[in-house]
Order: sequence, then C-alpha cells, then structure tokens
Amino acid sequence: MFNDENRTICAISSPAGMGAIAIVRLSGENSIKIASKLLSNKDKFFSLEHGKMLYTQIFGEDGKILDDVLLVKFIAPNSFTGENTVEIYCHGSEYIQSQIIITLINYGASVAKPGEFSFQAFFNSRIDLSQTEALADLISSSSRESHRLAINQMKGHISSEIAELREKMLELVALMELELDFGEEDVEFADRTKLSEITLELIERTSLLISSYKYGNAIKSGIPVAIVGEPNVGKSTLLNALLKDERAIVSHIPGTTRDTIEENLIIEGLKFRFIDTAGIRNSDDLVEKMGVKRTFENIEKSQVILLTIDANIVDSQTFEFISSIKSKINDDQYLLILLNKSDTVNNLNDEVFTKLADTISVSAKTRFNLDKLEQKLINWVKSLKTSESDLIITSSRQLELFQNINISLVRAKEGIDKGLSGDFVSQDLREAMYMLGEITGHITNDDVLGAIFSKFCIGK
Amino acid sequence: MFNDENRTICAISSPAGMGAIAIVRLSGENSIKIASKLLSNKDKFFSLEHGKMLYTQIFGEDGKILDDVLLVKFIAPNSFTGENTVEIYCHGSEYIQSQIIITLINYGASVAKPGEFSFQAFFNSRIDLSQTEALADLISSSSRESHRLAINQMKGHISSEIAELREKMLELVALMELELDFGEEDVEFADRTKLSEITLELIERTSLLISSYKYGNAIKSGIPVAIVGEPNVGKSTLLNALLKDERAIVSHIPGTTRDTIEENLIIEGLKFRFIDTAGIRNSDDLVEKMGVKRTFENIEKSQVILLTIDANIVDSQTFEFISSIKSKINDDQYLLILLNKSDTVNNLNDEVFTKLADTISVSAKTRFNLDKLEQKLINWVKSLKTSESDLIITSSRQLELFQNINISLVRAKEGIDKGLSGDFVSQDLREAMYMLGEITGHITNDDVLGAIFSKFCIGK
Repeated sequence: MFNDENRTICAISSPAGMGAIAIVRLSGENSIKIASKLLSNKDKFFSLEHGKMLYTQIFGEDGKILDDVLLVKFIAPNSFTGENTVEIYCHGSEYIQSQIIITLINYGASVAKPGEFSFQAFFNSRIDLSQTEALADLISSSSRESHRLAINQMKGHISSEIAELREKMLELVALMELELDFGEEDVEFADRTKLSEITLELIERTSLLISSYKYGNAIKSGIPVAIVGEPNVGKSTLLNALLKDERAIVSHIPGTTRDTIEENLIIEGLKFRFIDTAGIRNSDDLVEKMGVKRTFENIEKSQVILLTIDANIVDSQTFEFISSIKSKINDDQYLLILLNKSDTVNNLNDEVFTKLADTISVSAKTRFNLDKLEQKLINWVKSLKTSESDLIITSSRQLELFQNINISLVRAKEGIDKGLSGDFVSQDLREAMYMLGEITGHITNDDVLGAIFSKFCIGK
Repeated sequence: MFNDENRTICAISSPAGMGAIAIVRLSGENSIKIASKLLSNKDKFFSLEHGKMLYTQIFGEDGKILDDVLLVKFIAPNSFTGENTVEIYCHGSEYIQSQIIITLINYGASVAKPGEFSFQAFFNSRIDLSQTEALADLISSSSRESHRLAINQMKGHISSEIAELREKMLELVALMELELDFGEEDVEFADRTKLSEITLELIERTSLLISSYKYGNAIKSGIPVAIVGEPNVGKSTLLNALLKDERAIVSHIPGTTRDTIEENLIIEGLKFRFIDTAGIRNSDDLVEKMGVKRTFENIEKSQVILLTIDANIVDSQTFEFISSIKSKINDDQYLLILLNKSDTVNNLNDEVFTKLADTISVSAKTRFNLDKLEQKLINWVKSLKTSESDLIITSSRQLELFQNINISLVRAKEGIDKGLSGDFVSQDLREAMYMLGEITGHITNDDVLGAIFSKFCIGK
C-alpha cells in the first residue's frame, strides 16, 4: 500500500489548525539531509547528537527567514519509525506550517499518507499490527477506559498472549507432524490425551479473547443508549438532567437523522452515547409513524434501552407499550424501565414492572435516583466483561480472526479426539497459526494493511 | 495582569483538537519538580541534560500508565520564557492531553492564561513588547507578506530603530539640560542649529514609521476589496473567476451580514478580502434599499472598490452611477472601473472611463485580463509602501504612540528653533522618550499589557 519504502516522508504531526507550536515530522533515510537544507549552518545540524534539541533559524528556498524553530534528529533505528527522523517544532501559524511542508517537498520529501509513519514503524518491526491498531485507538481515545484498553494493547498484552498461543500451537504441530513422519510405522508418538488438553486450553484462551470483544467494543465506541417512551414522559428532561452533571465533558454530535439527538456522556471513565428519540405513539399520522419507525431503528442499534414511563399515568396501555418494546429487544441488549416523575406519585408499587424488566423509580426534575441510574448503567457495562483479565480486544478484524482460529482449534481437537491422522490435525493447527500471524501482521496482505492504516490521522 | 509571577503555568501549546502528537508546556521555577511527578524514574529526569529529549512512560495519579512521551527540559534562563521549562510531547488524543493537564494541576501547576508564556518571556526581558506583538502576528500570519513583516519585527528591526531613536533623544536631552544647568550664566553651550537638525532627523524617521502603518496594516489584516455594481453585471462571476485560480488557498468566511459574501484570496503573497455586495439599483423597494445601504457601508470599509460595469450596456445612467459611487470614495481608497463582459463588445472605447478613474476591460467569463486586474491590485498595495525600508509597523498601538512622539518632536524642534529655554524643549523630548519606552514595554501599564497578551492563543 505504501509503494516506495525508500522515500522520505513529511507531515504536520500536531493537530490541524493554528496554535502556539506545531510539529513537522520527517522520516526516511534522507530526512537529515533534506532537513539540513533548511539551515544555514548545516554542520551544526549534522554533528547534532541524537535526541538533542537545536534552537535555530530555518530558511525558505528564497533564502529568507521562515521561522525560529527547535529541531531534533533521531538516528535509525532509535526512532518511532525505525528510520532516520527529524522533528521540527515551529511557530503554529498555518502559513509557517504549510511553508515548511512545501519547502521540504521541494527538497525531495514526499507528503506522508495517513498512518504512513506508523506503517514504517510496523514495517521496521518497531511495533506489530495489533499494537498499530492500538495506537490508532489511543489517539482517538476519549474516555479513561478506552484509553486504558488502548495503552494495554499498545504495551503488547495481546501480542504476548498471541506469542504464547503461537508457541503452544507450534509445539502441537511439531508433535503431530512427528507422528506423521513415522505414521507408516504405525507408532503413536504423542500422547493424544495430552494433545487434546493443550488444544482445549488454546480453545479456552481464544474463547476468552472472543468474548472480551463485547466489552472492548463497547468501551472503544461508546455504549449506545436509547431513551424511548411515549411523548411527554420526560425523555428530554432526563437527557438534560444526565448531561448537566457532566457538562464539562459533554459533546454535541449532530444526529444521523434530523429528529434524533445524540449526546456523549462520560460516566466513571466510560463513554455512553445517549440517543434521544421521538416519542412513540400509536398513530395514523404518517409523519408520526415515520418517527416511530426511526425510534425502533434506534432501539435496534442501541445496547441499552431506557424505557421511560410517566409514573403518574400507568394503565393497561402502558403495559401494552412495554410489551411492544420488549418484543423488539434481544438478549444482548439491556432494557431498563424508568418510572419517571416519581416525585409526584405516592406509594408507587413497582413490583408489577420489575417482573417485566429491571426497573428504577427516578425523577429527572428533582434528580432523584439519577445516581442510581448511572450506577445501573455502569454495572451493566462491567457485566459485559467476561473475565478480570486485561486481555481485551477492540478490533473487529481481530475478533473475526480469533473466531476463525477458534473454529480451526475446535476442528483440530475433534481430530485429535477421534484419532484422525496427524496430517489432518496439523493442517487445522497451521491454519490457526497463519491467522495468528495475520493478527500481529507477521503475515499480511495489502487490503488489510490499507484498511488499518487508513484509520490513522495524517502525521502518525 | 498576571498577578503571581512565581506560579508554574501549564497549557497545551499545540493546536486544539486531536492529532498524532500534542505538546504540553510547563514554565516556572517548579516546573521540573512538578513534571518529575509524572515519572517513575525521577532521577533520570533530574539528571537529564538541558535540551535533551527523554523517551519515557508517564503515569497518572492512580499510578496507571498515562502515555509514552518525549520529555525535554530547558533550564532557566535558557528557555523561551526565561524560566525553567518542561515540554511534553504526548500522543495527541484529547483524553491524554486533558489528563496530563489535570494531573499537572493536581501536582501544583496552574493553567496558563492566553499569552502567559509570552508574558513571562517579556517579563524576563527575553523579548520586548514590540517583539511580543510581532510574535502574536507571526502565529496568526496567513500570507507570505504578513509572515515576513512579523518575522522582521520579531527579529527586532523596529526595536533597534527605537533604540537608535532613543539614543539620539538622550543625546539631545543631555545637551539641552546641560544648557539648562548653566542657563543663568547666559551661556549657550549647544549649537542649536545642530540640535534642530538632529530633531528634524528624528521627526523624519518617526514620520516614516507612521506612514509605514498604512501598508503594514493592509498586509496584516488583508486588503478589503468591495466588488460593486448594478445587478447582473457579473460581480459574482468575477469573484468566482478570481477565486478559481487560487482555490487551494481560498477560505470561506461567513459575512457579517447575510447578504454579503467575504472570501479571502492570496495573490503574490498578499491577502485580499473580497466582499461581494448586493447589486446597487435605484429602487423604491424597501428591502432593496436596505441592500444598497449595506453596499455603501461596504464601500466605506473597503480600501479597494472594483466598480463593475457591463460593457454591453453603457448609457447615461452608467455615468450617473459612477458619479454616485465616486462621491462615496475618499483619497485613501482605490477606485478601479472594470468593464466586464468585454469579450462580447467590439471596439470598446474606454477613454471616457479612464478620465473618471483607473479602468480596465475584463471578462470574468473568459478570464480575459484577470491577470492584469490582479497586477493592478498588487501594484496599488505596493504603492502604499512609502519607502523601501523594512521598518514597517502593523500595530495600531504603536502607530498612536509614534504619532504622539512625532508631535512631541515637532514641538521640541519649534522650541529649539525659536530659542525657547532648554527646560521646555527637554520636557517634550522626555515625553517622546517615555512613549518610546511604552512601545518596547520598558515603560508599561497593565491595561496595555492586558490588551496585547489577550490577543494570544492559549499555550503561547
């Protein structure tokens, strides 16, 4: 995907726009030579120590001062990319930033594609593919928990688990193929019970990774929460009440449809994406029907459904309504009934609701029980965590590969248990190993690389 | 304005938002001590050499890894601010950026106000006030010429001119006051003709600076160009044709009024702000009248007026129209008549127009003569430059002070020429010197400082 690995690339690595300081990064064999052309005193730069900052003027092609900057060089292989790298810390005017890039291009550098620095790091084995994915996650992390998962993965938690799995598989394959070599002599070298046990362990460990995805993905993408209910039960008041408390870290996202408001809210380091939907009502009105259809779509794509009811108006219709919502919900979703406006109701008996789904009395207006509501949300997310292990995958690419690895392993175990010949079993194991290699990028194909690196921002 | 000079300040110095790398800057006596709390191996950081980068993990207050970063420290006074400074180059996730700031605050740092790092640099005499203003200009510079002016001023061109002016004034004052000391003996020590000559030189040099402002301000703010004309003469086509050629550096700015479109265009390194106005037509319609009123307001606030005429429809009304526009224009503005759609007219005689104002035949549609139009704009801007000197001021604050200095000098010269007593003359000279000190910030007041530093972005 990055065709010419010998090129020297450059990009603005700081966030886009104007600021006090911006960073221009150059990587490639010629980066030091190219960067030196910006200076009048090149020798000073050539003799500059690795990792030591140089305060200097840089000049444009016309010989005029471009800026006063700090320059640093990192000598291969001791840089992020593993190549010679130069970083320029310039004044953050957009004009200066673009002029430096233009000048470097004229001196022989190429504009880096998104993720190209990281690709070089991967290409030079500074990080593996799973760490590369974690790096992209790290940069886009917006909550404590998504940050923590990305850090763990970047530190190689998954990578070392994969290394262990791979080692065990290699051991299995070796034993199976040994059996194969001597197959004609009809001797069984390996203890098949032992092999079956090892395979079972591998199956269990990959299953754990597979089941971690549900939590990992919820953390990485934020947990979608639909607030649904009939009109005027206080859905928007509830959303506002929830947001108010955390307004410092609230961001507004334009809804995908005009009638849906989506708001991000971070509670105890977890990101929730609240979707305030149109009120649901049985109606013959076409426009309202469309709103209801959209609400059902929102339910479908949410993980948590806050079914909001006006505790003052509970009648047979209420239960019909709850049933209709329940029929739309699957086992992976969490339905929580909110008996709102409970501050104006005396002796509310919620037993009839708790039989239908988890229920809590709240008042969006007086903020009664909103803390408990938040706690219920947190607890549900935590319940997605299938183990205390920090081995949590967040990438759908990795999920799919681990699922296929798991299938191969199950097949291998069946073969072992049924006493199938070693070549059948070892083929399944080799398949699994191949897919492990795809996760870390030791085995790659361009489509996969393209998909991963295109998620990066420019300059990384 | 920044009350406690002993505090240690921190801020994100890279542009706002997500990116590959972000920069957090700490400045103040305790910045090294505070930053060290992020590390597990503090000794390594304490013994780190000035200006040398350290690749390290940093930790949050909970002891968990926050990020892998590059850290650098600059020991006072060899830093931008003149204080101990630490810079942290972290992954550019917004979560990480905010967590580092929050952690540093909990460790004793304060959030820097906009411009506070620059204020410290000024306070510690690393740069003077005129250079500080240039620094703010540099960061917001968006064209080659505005960048060049800011660089020149930052390099101290104005500052050294002021130093020279000040020295000459000091010399004058000394001579005048020497005369004063011996005044009662009725001896004239100084050669008044010589003094008058020196004062005249000072007047001429400050006049040059004053007249440079017209160019300096045009460059810094961009030159407002109003495109005016009757409806359907091709104003918008013209604007689009001009923009098309330079679309890479065009930005869209929402107009101040709903009916005015403002577009920035950089031609040969100079920024023009084109204002496409509503067509002017004599009309009884109230709404149209309001549009016309707005057009006249736009003419008033523009420096260049492109009066656009359909060359196919030239009649007595056309000349009435030109007269009405001319009556609105003052000597500092540049009126250029554009005979548009000239591609569809044979043998157009423009002599009748050139008598009224500078005129050029163009065709927005075929792009005929648009290059010449651009050249006329460039030439006019260059004509604002009153000398070849690089001493160009861009700050209205400096303009006002130089104007007052000039007045004091003129008064001083009159006193010298009229043979007034030395104490009168020296008072005027001392006033002028005081105001010079205000320009460089050697003499300051809080209101002025507040106004200057509030223009900075956070982190600078």
